[in-house]
Amino acid sequence: MEKFLDYVEKHQNDFVERLRKAVAIPSVSGDPSHRPDVFRMADFLVQELKNLGADVETRDLGKQDWHGTSLDLPPIVLATVGNDPSKKTILVYGHYDVQPALLEDGWNTNPFELVEDEKNRLIGRGSTDDKGPILGWINVVEAHKNLGLELPVNLKFCLEGMEESGSEGLDGLIYKEADKYFKDVDAVCISDNYWLGTTKPCLTYGLRGVSYFHVKIKGPGADLHSGVFGGTVHEPMTDLFAIMSKLVNVHGKILIPGIYDQVRPLTDEEQAIYKDISFKMEELQSAVGNKTNIHEDIPKTLQSRWRNPSLSIHGVEGAFYNPGDKTVIPACVTGKFSIRTVPDMEPKKISQLVCKYIEDEFAKLGSKNTLHVHCTHDGNHWLSSPNHPNYVAAAKAVETVYNVKPDLTREGGSIPVTLSFQSALNKNVLLLPMGRGDDGAHSINEKLDRSNYVKGTQLLGTYLYEVSKVEL
Amino acid sequence: MEKFLDYVEKHQNDFVERLRKAVAIPSVSGDPSHRPDVFRMADFLVQELKNLGADVETRDLGKQDWHGTSLDLPPIVLATVGNDPSKKTILVYGHYDVQPALLEDGWNTNPFELVEDEKNRLIGRGSTDDKGPILGWINVVEAHKNLGLELPVNLKFCLEGMEESGSEGLDGLIYKEADKYFKDVDAVCISDNYWLGTTKPCLTYGLRGVSYFHVKIKGPGADLHSGVFGGTVHEPMTDLFAIMSKLVNVHGKILIPGIYDQVRPLTDEEQAIYKDISFKMEELQSAVGNKTNIHEDIPKTLQSRWRNPSLSIHGVEGAFYNPGDKTVIPACVTGKFSIRTVPDMEPKKISQLVCKYIEDEFAKLGSKNTLHVHCTHDGNHWLSSPNHPNYVAAAKAVETVYNVKPDLTREGGSIPVTLSFQSALNKNVLLLPMGRGDDGAHSINEKLDRSNYVKGTQLLGTYLYEVSKVEL
Repeated sequence: MEKFLDYVEKHQNDFVERLRKAVAIPSVSGDPSHRPDVFRMADFLVQELKNLGADVETRDLGKQDWHGTSLDLPPIVLATVGNDPSKKTILVYGHYDVQPALLEDGWNTNPFELVEDEKNRLIGRGSTDDKGPILGWINVVEAHKNLGLELPVNLKFCLEGMEESGSEGLDGLIYKEADKYFKDVDAVCISDNYWLGTTKPCLTYGLRGVSYFHVKIKGPGADLHSGVFGGTVHEPMTDLFAIMSKLVNVHGKILIPGIYDQVRPLTDEEQAIYKDISFKMEELQSAVGNKTNIHEDIPKTLQSRWRNPSLSIHGVEGAFYNPGDKTVIPACVTGKFSIRTVPDMEPKKISQLVCKYIEDEFAKLGSKNTLHVHCTHDGNHWLSSPNHPNYVAAAKAVETVYNVKPDLTREGGSIPVTLSFQSALNKNVLLLPMGRGDDGAHSINEKLDRSNYVKGTQLLGTYLYEVSKVEL
Repeated sequence: MEKFLDYVEKHQNDFVERLRKAVAIPSVSGDPSHRPDVFRMADFLVQELKNLGADVETRDLGKQDWHGTSLDLPPIVLATVGNDPSKKTILVYGHYDVQPALLEDGWNTNPFELVEDEKNRLIGRGSTDDKGPILGWINVVEAHKNLGLELPVNLKFCLEGMEESGSEGLDGLIYKEADKYFKDVDAVCISDNYWLGTTKPCLTYGLRGVSYFHVKIKGPGADLHSGVFGGTVHEPMTDLFAIMSKLVNVHGKILIPGIYDQVRPLTDEEQAIYKDISFKMEELQSAVGNKTNIHEDIPKTLQSRWRNPSLSIHGVEGAFYNPGDKTVIPACVTGKFSIRTVPDMEPKKISQLVCKYIEDEFAKLGSKNTLHVHCTHDGNHWLSSPNHPNYVAAAKAVETVYNVKPDLTREGGSIPVTLSFQSALNKNVLLLPMGRGDDGAHSINEKLDRSNYVKGTQLLGTYLYEVSKVEL
């Protein structure tokens, strides 16, 4: 392992060149004009992996309907390095597509040209999300090949090209291949999230779920002139504001009865975790852009993000939304909000509570308009345990590479593939981030610090050594 | 006058031909590609009026900025028939531009081809709004010319081509010409609104005003991911819904303190008027498209439309408005609503009351976001008196032509030119509609019943006789 760490340190410039080549391919999955580049990026990875002796195959996912146009979906790249039955098999997931990026969005440099600045930040679209981490795994394989070393585990790759556009086709493939390609997998490791802050590595063991709701209120048969009809008819917007003002208070407390009954109580043990987390309120304020934070202390802030539900109102469909003034009474409006869910909330129960509450509140109004409320989609929360051997191995790897115990974090958002792997394979899933909290994954000037890329590569390799030793 | 009425009856087919020619010119002021047609329509009127011996001039209003493109504004057509100092001078206003119309919007026939159906409805864009009424006045002039009769008054025309697009330039001209072209005007008559229902003519003596408000709430520095930040920051949409739910209840009652203190109390005399108005709740329901009316009886419904204020929420700028789901926390949102105002509400006072109330309610919330509320524009209400000699004359004309006393109505919307003429000329303004309440002015299949066009022409002429006899 010493040799491996040393190799990575010495060959870091080669690894940066590899990242440069990857960033130069604008594999924007959300822009049809870049679809050929997404395919090019898949080819690039296939070639890199083949060069290192991996057993590579691609899986065609068929077509995508893009606003009436049929587009070829980029393939899933599956690659295997080693198939020794005496070794554990670790599955790693990553995505090779990226978010859109244009110089005129405010980038300081061409987003598809990797630039290293004076702070040794490797700037370019996809550097941290998620090309850097994918190449980290490839770097690990290269190091072992060139050192003439065997990997301590069998390594399986699952790389997709549609993550930034809804992961179309991925879930189907995972379930289909659960007993085939993924058959011998002992644990899963995903490097596609970030440190909480900028200085300390973390392991992530929980994600919130999300339940999305539409509140549709139908009034008059058509939009009406507010001069001619104002005061004579029940207006859907009035009803909508009356109802949706009763969902959450300004301090973020959800007002729907029964929601908090389903939230797992905070134990003393869990409460203790938050004291050690490396996080400052200034980091939140910097990310938010000002001091509109609800809570003043770190534990409450982190708990609000990680382990408590939240409710956000996103918008209204069917009403006036342009700049300027328009004096119409919208005939039919749909309010949209979502609830971020946490253990032990059950999507079905949540949906029942929400719909009943809104229907009851609407009935109280005495409006002649009609209401339809429903849950448009839900994704469950996910919670692993930092005590699982897969996590313990990763924590040891962090200590080896960074000389520090990792923060144990959860995240407020969702990474659906995490749940898919866990459900389909019934194996432990570890989120082991490479980049920092300020990498700006979906923003302008996305970057990955050189040290995160190099030490991150060391971390991924070291994790393989540690996980090879534990009982999974 | 008998001769005149007889002439109109006998030459009605000629008048329909005149309307056919006018409707054939698609003078859509809101569509730049039709701007030449708006000019063509002005030329058509100039030619018609000149042929009848009127003294015609056009006034250039300069340029219009249309999304960065400079467009020529259509001219105001000013025409004078007669200048006998011993006669009264009546100013008539109309507009020769029309709303957009496409066959594919749902028209049964080509909107710019006048079609008479089996119920003798003259169907075509502009038939009732406002080409029919303009031509009504021209028909009156023609009848007198061909009969060798002098008009009982001096008649002045003011015809604009931008009414459907904000009447750009009109107000300036009215004030500029108040002491010149409009100098000798004794009273004004506008035929650009509609009967309340479908069977009984009316005179309209009141319009509501409107005050439009923007409630802007600024939160985080940029839109945020609701998974990552939900529960940790004050969300502008939460604040907006909290505040805007306190503006009006579902029964249309405005909740802003002090608003109703400014509303002129309902007297027994005024209350009595509503009993005689020819109106059925079914007419409202038919216009609205269903039974979402707030009030069950006619007086309350009409009072809500005519003489009481109303508040409508129009929409939200800055939030998600498309179909589908999006999980963003909007950083800055602007809620928009307007209040329809009535005597004796004063726009300035209303604005003060509204802003103070919203600021106070926002302060109570305890949000760290910032609020800015302001009135973006206001137009005052207008109220004349049906007892004014100008109205008494018009009422007599209705009795002569229709054998019925007109309904005395007000309208819920605003017609800004009414206030402009009254303020600039300080003369009584009469609204004397030609069309019926179901003409569908801005809708598909706009129509003017042949009888309304013919009797309407008789009515406008008869009004000139009656008004010539009264003391103004």
